[in-house]
Amino acid sequence: MDRLLEKVVSDCRCFTTQGHVATYIPELAHVDPDQLGIYVVSNSAEDAHAGDAFALFTMQSIVKPVILLLALMDSGIDRVRELVGVEATGKPFDAINYSDQALTEAHINPMINTGAIALLTLIHGENYEIRLNRLLELTRKLAGNPNLRVDEAVYHSEKETGNKNRALAYMLKAYGMITDPVEDILDCYFKACSILVDCRDLARIAHVFANHGASCSTGQQLFPAEYARYVNATLATCGMYDGSGGFALDVGVPAKSGVGGGIMAVIPRRMGVGVFSPAIDRHGNSVAGVRTLAHLSKMLDLNIY
Amino acid sequence: MDRLLEKVVSDCRCFTTQGHVATYIPELAHVDPDQLGIYVVSNSAEDAHAGDAFALFTMQSIVKPVILLLALMDSGIDRVRELVGVEATGKPFDAINYSDQALTEAHINPMINTGAIALLTLIHGENYEIRLNRLLELTRKLAGNPNLRVDEAVYHSEKETGNKNRALAYMLKAYGMITDPVEDILDCYFKACSILVDCRDLARIAHVFANHGASCSTGQQLFPAEYARYVNATLATCGMYDGSGGFALDVGVPAKSGVGGGIMAVIPRRMGVGVFSPAIDRHGNSVAGVRTLAHLSKMLDLNIY
Amino acid sequence: MDRLLEKVVSDCRCFTTQGHVATYIPELAHVDPDQLGIYVVSNSAEDAHAGDAFALFTMQSIVKPVILLLALMDSGIDRVRELVGVEATGKPFDAINYSDQALTEAHINPMINTGAIALLTLIHGENYEIRLNRLLELTRKLAGNPNLRVDEAVYHSEKETGNKNRALAYMLKAYGMITDPVEDILDCYFKACSILVDCRDLARIAHVFANHGASCSTGQQLFPAEYARYVNATLATCGMYDGSGGFALDVGVPAKSGVGGGIMAVIPRRMGVGVFSPAIDRHGNSVAGVRTLAHLSKMLDLNIY
Amino acid sequence: MDRLLEKVVSDCRCFTTQGHVATYIPELAHVDPDQLGIYVVSNSAEDAHAGDAFALFTMQSIVKPVILLLALMDSGIDRVRELVGVEATGKPFDAINYSDQALTEAHINPMINTGAIALLTLIHGENYEIRLNRLLELTRKLAGNPNLRVDEAVYHSEKETGNKNRALAYMLKAYGMITDPVEDILDCYFKACSILVDCRDLARIAHVFANHGASCSTGQQLFPAEYARYVNATLATCGMYDGSGGFALDVGVPAKSGVGGGIMAVIPRRMGVGVFSPAIDRHGNSVAGVRTLAHLSKMLDLNIY
Repeated sequence: MDRLLEKVVSDCRCFTTQGHVATYIPELAHVDPDQLGIYVVSNSAEDAHAGDAFALFTMQSIVKPVILLLALMDSGIDRVRELVGVEATGKPFDAINYSDQALTEAHINPMINTGAIALLTLIHGENYEIRLNRLLELTRKLAGNPNLRVDEAVYHSEKETGNKNRALAYMLKAYGMITDPVEDILDCYFKACSILVDCRDLARIAHVFANHGASCSTGQQLFPAEYARYVNATLATCGMYDGSGGFALDVGVPAKSGVGGGIMAVIPRRMGVGVFSPAIDRHGNSVAGVRTLAHLSKMLDLNIY
Repeated sequence: MDRLLEKVVSDCRCFTTQGHVATYIPELAHVDPDQLGIYVVSNSAEDAHAGDAFALFTMQSIVKPVILLLALMDSGIDRVRELVGVEATGKPFDAINYSDQALTEAHINPMINTGAIALLTLIHGENYEIRLNRLLELTRKLAGNPNLRVDEAVYHSEKETGNKNRALAYMLKAYGMITDPVEDILDCYFKACSILVDCRDLARIAHVFANHGASCSTGQQLFPAEYARYVNATLATCGMYDGSGGFALDVGVPAKSGVGGGIMAVIPRRMGVGVFSPAIDRHGNSVAGVRTLAHLSKMLDLNIY
Repeated sequence: MDRLLEKVVSDCRCFTTQGHVATYIPELAHVDPDQLGIYVVSNSAEDAHAGDAFALFTMQSIVKPVILLLALMDSGIDRVRELVGVEATGKPFDAINYSDQALTEAHINPMINTGAIALLTLIHGENYEIRLNRLLELTRKLAGNPNLRVDEAVYHSEKETGNKNRALAYMLKAYGMITDPVEDILDCYFKACSILVDCRDLARIAHVFANHGASCSTGQQLFPAEYARYVNATLATCGMYDGSGGFALDVGVPAKSGVGGGIMAVIPRRMGVGVFSPAIDRHGNSVAGVRTLAHLSKMLDLNIY
Repeated sequence: MDRLLEKVVSDCRCFTTQGHVATYIPELAHVDPDQLGIYVVSNSAEDAHAGDAFALFTMQSIVKPVILLLALMDSGIDRVRELVGVEATGKPFDAINYSDQALTEAHINPMINTGAIALLTLIHGENYEIRLNRLLELTRKLAGNPNLRVDEAVYHSEKETGNKNRALAYMLKAYGMITDPVEDILDCYFKACSILVDCRDLARIAHVFANHGASCSTGQQLFPAEYARYVNATLATCGMYDGSGGFALDVGVPAKSGVGGGIMAVIPRRMGVGVFSPAIDRHGNSVAGVRTLAHLSKMLDLNIY
């Protein structure tokens, strides 16, 4: 498997020159665009990896499925689905997705910023520092990595330039969809997006979702299987921003990307995959990362459709 | 299996009183809303059915995956994807899905009317009568039913009241996305939507997609596997109109519904399912049909996510 | 006055090189862009003109106020306002101005294509040939020019390439706002847009509106004053496409432009002005024409605000 | 004139039962809806008034033309027009008026919230307290009333519930259209909206605009005439929210309404009018106020079109 991954990475490294490193968060602009890494955790084989599998990057939107999971664990499916819809919006992840009428749950989903911000209010905790810690703890547990931490520089960079997210949050508040203080929620959101991970962390988190909540190391059921399916189904329809439809054709598995260049791919009942390459396309998806997954999907017949 | 289906139908028949029979096509308004039928074609068991499995209804939007398939067979993946995008639009199936800018492939997909109308121009044939016949022949072959035919009354009803589709087609023409005569294309479209089928037909068509192009009776490969995956992936993200995200959560399989009350569900590598119940919800999906599939999905663990 | 107009034309002729001749109607693309003409009919002075005041061009959207007037004369204010709203749409003149909901009168106004097409159905006449003739007769009467006629080449060019207008008309039909045959209505619309005029014709038509329905030659009241005010108010808020707000600042009078390069300006109780220069800006307004009117407005203090 | 106004008020008082008092700002919900007052300042006659002409109410959006004026006085026409466009948006006053693309000056105008908020940044002053004071001073000067003051209860009510305006302001900031601290700007905005006036104040302010900047008492030119025309033209096309087109038909003069129930009407070169009646229609315009102005316009032939 290691050899196969080496070949995939070697075949796809040329794509790192396509796309551009995200610049709207200044801290992200410093990254070397020429990186490409992959890590695979499989039910039927040993872990394997290739390329820059242990380079660190921030989760960004990849934390959204974890936010969704913790909201489901704390508040249950009905409450989550009542607050945040599940349909694709047909608009960019940071669009204010409504026209002139009232903003409702039907205009958002857990994989766009507005939805993720709203879901933070369904996570339990006296304040948003506690909620962030619970979210970080859950991420550590899923990744089997107690050392995961927030990148303070990225967090501060996001906080300073996050005015569009502020607009989204105040719009949610204006329509009564959230009631807590906007800056507290956003602080939690910006920190969550700034959690540092590597490809192995993503692969392990994905693997838990692939096994419907069972820990990859202990086999212990960390959360109900139906929550994993909720997350996976949402990833399948909305996980790759406005490129979700194309990704379903080209790769054919539930996945979540982040503008930091990471992608977490869930192959149900089989595998968790983490890839990383910082140059992203206009939708916000890692160019070389998508190509790598497409290549892998063909070679291992991962496509679920 | 027959007994299991009997139970599912019996449990879900109460939902036939929810929803409303489609009325925008006058001919569809005459249908008895209290019907519910299901037919299952499986790789691992004999065919099974329950309820009104042999009641006839028109395919309506369920013909869209067949149109997509024939366009792929005639013109190839690149040409299809260049003309008609694959992203969810976040809008109703008959919406003119663009704001003020030029209409492009990025605004449409094969499962909304505009996309399906555009794809008819990629089907080969000297004229649109020939194209319709080729489409009908392919549908018959997939269903293993040489008797499939167009319901003339429904076709005429659609033709008379199809002004929104005329608007969509002229918009495509205004933006240079189609060049053939609009009324010829629409005639073909309205006839295709009016093909009469029963649940068995749908189940068999679905079964071919589930087996990636292999005929369920002969095992013969009717078309390349990658076309089946193209169709299935598109169904997974956009097949159930604006209810596609919710359907992915509740059922978790690629499927296509029509306002006639039918749903064709594809369980990759396992099964093809056809259900029928004419009362539809505000998205255009059969209410009892969706409930029946959700029930079946839980009982047989069909969810692919 | 002639001398003043000569100066204005001479000062503004340089602007004819800005903007571009309309090309979406192929026949319009042949025009010499370097023309600029003006004609003024005033209550307090003799007629005056300068430049290419007698060059012929097609009315295009400038016929919209005449359509509105005849609809008012035939069907009355209430019926007109019930079918076609009066608010600015904030969108281009040929936009399908609605999102996903039903198209209603609130989405359109008489100065966008959809509104003008709808208003043709309120003009009396057994068929649309008769209606076109009545519209042409009214235009001749307003202009005091019995020789006005349709430019057949432009009409055929519009008819051939008018698919966006077809889409708009079928959308009106789909929502029950019109019931007559679309091609008949559009034929009338394309012919009406193709009526040939010069600056004098426009100035005289404008002068009747400026005098609230009184003929400039005979003083005879051609139609009720309130219809003139209806037209003038609509021109003030929506007459210059998406440039209406800027035109109100820069010129400050009710006016209607056409993509043929003409502008008809109404100075209530004082004056009617026609200008012509074929190079138009991105909104569809004659560049040199607007500049000429702005210049004239300053020199003669025409601004009504 | 007093007698004429008495009659108009008496004829129109029945309309106070139509419409509803604004409730989205809790403090506004306490107002007695059965009030109707009018005050007229004319060039050719003594002041006249009728009904509740001296009842106090907050300016709300009627302060927008004053904000626009001060921005023009401090920063000039070019800078103002570069930051905030002048076209009608076709959307509600508090809509986030853009789709998915960047927010630009073309999406806003001075009479919608986003535009007014942006214009506050063009008013001079070291901080926003100073700017508010300068705005209040200008309003006092225009109204000839040194006692105008901010209603603290309404201000606090607006501040607490003003999350939609916060969203609008952060969106402006996200797109680089404003750079100052959002809460400072909003504080100034909420206070400006909360300035208490009566019909006489509005009539006097309107009268200055009607006389293109000349003080009604002293005749002194308070600001350049072209600024008055800028304001008046903007009022004519966008002053009555989404009812501006209908108001141009029914009344035919530049005017600005506020959700507090006031309307300020400018009859260029002739008159300033203030009306007040708190029950508003779905656009945000006082129902009885609009009727009163329509009545007056007919009786005194005020319509400028």
